[in-house]
Parts: sequence; structure tokens; C-alpha cells
Amino acid sequence: MKTYLDCIACFVRQAVDCAKLATDDEKIQEKIVRQALSAAKNADMEQVPPVMVQKIMRMVRELSANPDPHRHIKKISNQIVLDMYPALKKRIEQSKNPLENAVRLACTGNVIDFGIHIKMDKEDIEKHIEQAFSEQIDMQALENFRSAVTKAEKILYLGDNAGEIVLDRLLIEQLPFKKITFAVRGGPIINDVLMEDAMMTGITGLVDVIDNGSDSPGVLFGDCSEKFCKVFEASDMIIAKGQGNYESLSEVNKNIFFLLKAKCSVIASHLNCSVGNLILRQHKLQQQNNSDEN
Amino acid sequence: MKTYLDCIACFVRQAVDCAKLATDDEKIQEKIVRQALSAAKNADMEQVPPVMVQKIMRMVRELSANPDPHRHIKKISNQIVLDMYPALKKRIEQSKNPLENAVRLACTGNVIDFGIHIKMDKEDIEKHIEQAFSEQIDMQALENFRSAVTKAEKILYLGDNAGEIVLDRLLIEQLPFKKITFAVRGGPIINDVLMEDAMMTGITGLVDVIDNGSDSPGVLFGDCSEKFCKVFEASDMIIAKGQGNYESLSEVNKNIFFLLKAKCSVIASHLNCSVGNLILRQHKLQQQNNSDEN
Repeated sequence: MKTYLDCIACFVRQAVDCAKLATDDEKIQEKIVRQALSAAKNADMEQVPPVMVQKIMRMVRELSANPDPHRHIKKISNQIVLDMYPALKKRIEQSKNPLENAVRLACTGNVIDFGIHIKMDKEDIEKHIEQAFSEQIDMQALENFRSAVTKAEKILYLGDNAGEIVLDRLLIEQLPFKKITFAVRGGPIINDVLMEDAMMTGITGLVDVIDNGSDSPGVLFGDCSEKFCKVFEASDMIIAKGQGNYESLSEVNKNIFFLLKAKCSVIASHLNCSVGNLILRQHKLQQQNNSDEN
Repeated sequence: MKTYLDCIACFVRQAVDCAKLATDDEKIQEKIVRQALSAAKNADMEQVPPVMVQKIMRMVRELSANPDPHRHIKKISNQIVLDMYPALKKRIEQSKNPLENAVRLACTGNVIDFGIHIKMDKEDIEKHIEQAFSEQIDMQALENFRSAVTKAEKILYLGDNAGEIVLDRLLIEQLPFKKITFAVRGGPIINDVLMEDAMMTGITGLVDVIDNGSDSPGVLFGDCSEKFCKVFEASDMIIAKGQGNYESLSEVNKNIFFLLKAKCSVIASHLNCSVGNLILRQHKLQQQNNSDEN
């Protein structure tokens, strides 16, 4: 997905929010925001949005000398959802359609996105999760997802945010998890999951976990480790969580299922849905048409 | 009021929203946004926010060759509230406290601000106006307002937005309106009122109306006409509507009553209230302390 003008406004807002989170020094906050404006001014609109977010967040970390401004928030988000985990697991397992409810929860968890909502407390998270059970999802896509999971030999699950990762665990527990490798980001970026979040939330005890070698809030292959790229290539199904992974993979020709909550008008328009919708979307594979070669 | 980092993010969002409203040409929209980023990057944070908004909106009009992007929206807003005017007037006059309810409505009308909400339809406006009658306002400030209006000889009423101006009319009708001069902006700026809006909504038939000679969404004296500055100077009470007038006059030593709806966290924090509150606030006059001269 290319960068839209609304993404530019969002980049600047994220720079302001993250500058304030990273440091109390108002002079440094101002410097970060001015540099972000300068970067945004020269943005290449043909690039996927995570490229500019990566650039701005590197500035935030460098200028504030704060290597991971969201670290505390990530721990809190994980703990809030971990506290709900036992009850949610029971509720999923006792429900008529465990996979359906687990998908709903995993999509809903994507609301815990500090790129979009700088303020999200325990009450907000609990409210969203409670609502998840009655949210609509695409039932045809769910059947395709179920079938794809059965057929696949190697599944790569791309994580997105802290807190959300606990709901990813609930979904993974409903899947043939021996087939699954879970990928975290390679370096701090907003509240995206790192290896320490996978460890804190029990993902590492459940499936293989790798990091992608990149501090982008999406998958930029040129920036990812060779190891990650090989695992991606070798997987016959990708489960991609969240907007950043969608933005960076929406034009990659691979068997991908996107699971997310549409949190802005740009994404909603791109997905032809409404802001707030839970999305389970099977990627439209481009057909390889050999006749074109003639 | 100085410019805060959150204002910078808001300037960029306004540039994006207004660029899209002003022209369908995506290349021009992009050019506007890049120039706005460049201007914001060099913003003087000590200046009041309307200075940068004026600068950006001039760029929008110039680059899009659209002299008044909000013109159509302003007419529609005026008409929506004009259609409600007879019933609202009756309701105010039959109420126990007509002035109190007129103040509530005038403050609530300030929600029709296309700098903040680019989308606001008939249903939204009607909902806000209906809610107005049960909103809290500062009763002590209301008594001070009532008394100040009685004492004042010349009152200058600074209008803010289209649509809102119809509710200003309802308030003016509860005041000794022969004392009142109403000021509109001197040139198109977002959905702020111009002389044509005062004419369309019947303000010109009720009180003297002048324009302030400026296309800023606030009062920048260096940019206003001499005539306006003289009327301002000669008035012993100012009724200032909206955030832009507050931002530009919050440090001016004059007998001012600010009437607005707090629509962003910066203003809410500056006014020590919550976002969404209706504000009737008597300006704290700085005491002239002659002993300082010694």
C-alpha cells in the first residue's frame, strides 16, 4: 500500500505523541517534531507507510536517547491481557465455535495500537475484548482460513502489538501449532512485539519464535534478516496481524491471511470496510499467467 | 496562547483536510501538504496558533486556485441552523432562563468547526444543539456576564464559525443589542464567518457588522484593519466566540468573555477543563500596578 496524505498527518501526530512519551525535555520534543516534519516533507508517497514511521521513530529514539519509549506501556499491556487469559481461554474452549471466537479476539487485540491510540487503559482494553465476542467477521474467509491452516505445512504468524500478542496466543492454541513459527520485530518500534514480549506472554514456550531483524512496524524485506526472509519464503501460509503488516504486504504475492482491526479511514478505504471493523481477509493472489510470456 | 506541539500535528491534519476539500487534483493536494510541512517545520512556537493556520490556509487557497474552499459548507451549515432557528427561539423565550439557554446554545454552536471536524452533517449539528439545553455552564460566570452586559456601553461580539452564527444571533437577541457591534473575518479562512454569512443569517439586520480586515482564524491586531482595531479599543466589553479568538486574545488585557466549546486537549488543558466542556469564561484582567513604576 502506498502512502496517502492522511498517513502524512498521522506520521506527524505519532511523532508528537512519541516525542512526549520518550522524553520530558521540551526542547528535545520540539527538535524531534521539527525533524519529523522535515522527513515527512520529503516522503516518497510510493513507499509503504512503515518506511516513514521507521524513520521517524528512529529519530525519536536517537534524539531522546531513549532506546524503547514504549517499553513500560508494552509490559503493562501484556500484563492486562495476561490477567484476562485464563478466563478468555475457558470461554473460547467452552464456546460452540472456538476458532471463530479466537479469530475475533485476535483481530480485536489489534486495537491495542499506540501508533493510533496513545491512551489506552485497562478499562478500554477490557471493553474492546468483551465486545469482541459479538463482532461480525467474514464467515467465508473464516472457512477458507480453517481450510488453509489444515492444508499448510509451514505457517508463519507475524505478530504486531504488545497485549494483542496474548490474544494471538489464544488463536495459536486453536491451530495446529507445531506448524507455526511466530515472528516478532527485530528492534523497538512503537508498541510492536519484541522477543521479550513473546517470552513474557508464553509464546516462546508454545511455538518457535524468530525476530525479523528489522525495527520497522511492518515487513520491509530489504531491512529484514536473511533468516527471516528464508522462513517467510519457505512458509506456505502467512498469518499477518495488524495494519503495519497489511500496509507492507498488501501487494506481496503470497498465501496471506490478514487479521486486523481497521483503525483509520485510509486502511478502511483500502479494505473497503468501515473504521472499527474486524478484518479477516484472505489475500488475493496474483495469478501467474504464462500466456503473457508469448 | 503559544503554539504547542499538538497544535503542529493539528496544523498538518488541517492542511490535509483542506487540500482535499479545495481541489480534486492529487498533485496539487500533495504540493499543499508538502508546503504546509515546510511551514510547520519553521513554526515560531511563541506565536499564537492562528498565525500558522492563516499561513497554511493561504497556501491552500493559492495553490488550489480556490478562493474559499469552505464556501459551500458554510452556506449549508448556516441553512441547517437557520431551519432550526424559529423553534429554538421559541424554546429559549419560553424557558425559565432565556439568557442561560442562549449562552449554552451559543457555546455549543462552536462545535461546528471544520478546522476540527471536517465531517459534520445535519444530524450531528442537530444532536449537539439538542444536547446543549442540558449542558453545564459556569453559573457564576453567567452572572458576571449578565452584569457586564448591563454595565457595558459598547460591546464587540467576535463571531467565529458559519452555522454557529445563527446561535450567536439567538444570544444577541437576548442582549441589549443596540450596544453591540458584530465582527466577521476579513477574508475566507476555514469555515469562519464572513460578511455574507452575517447577511445570510440576519445578523446585519439586527446589529452593526464590521469585518476585521484579516483572513486569520483569530484576532491578530497587526493584520486587522485600523477600523476594527479602533472599534476593539473603544469597546468596554468583548464577547469572543471560539477557540481561534481565545488562542489569540487569551493574553490581551481587556474585559473579555470567552464563549466556546473546548474541542482539543491543548485548549482544555489551557482552560483547565475537559474536552467537550462548554466554556463561558471571564478573562482575568491583569491589574495595573502603579507601584511597579517606582
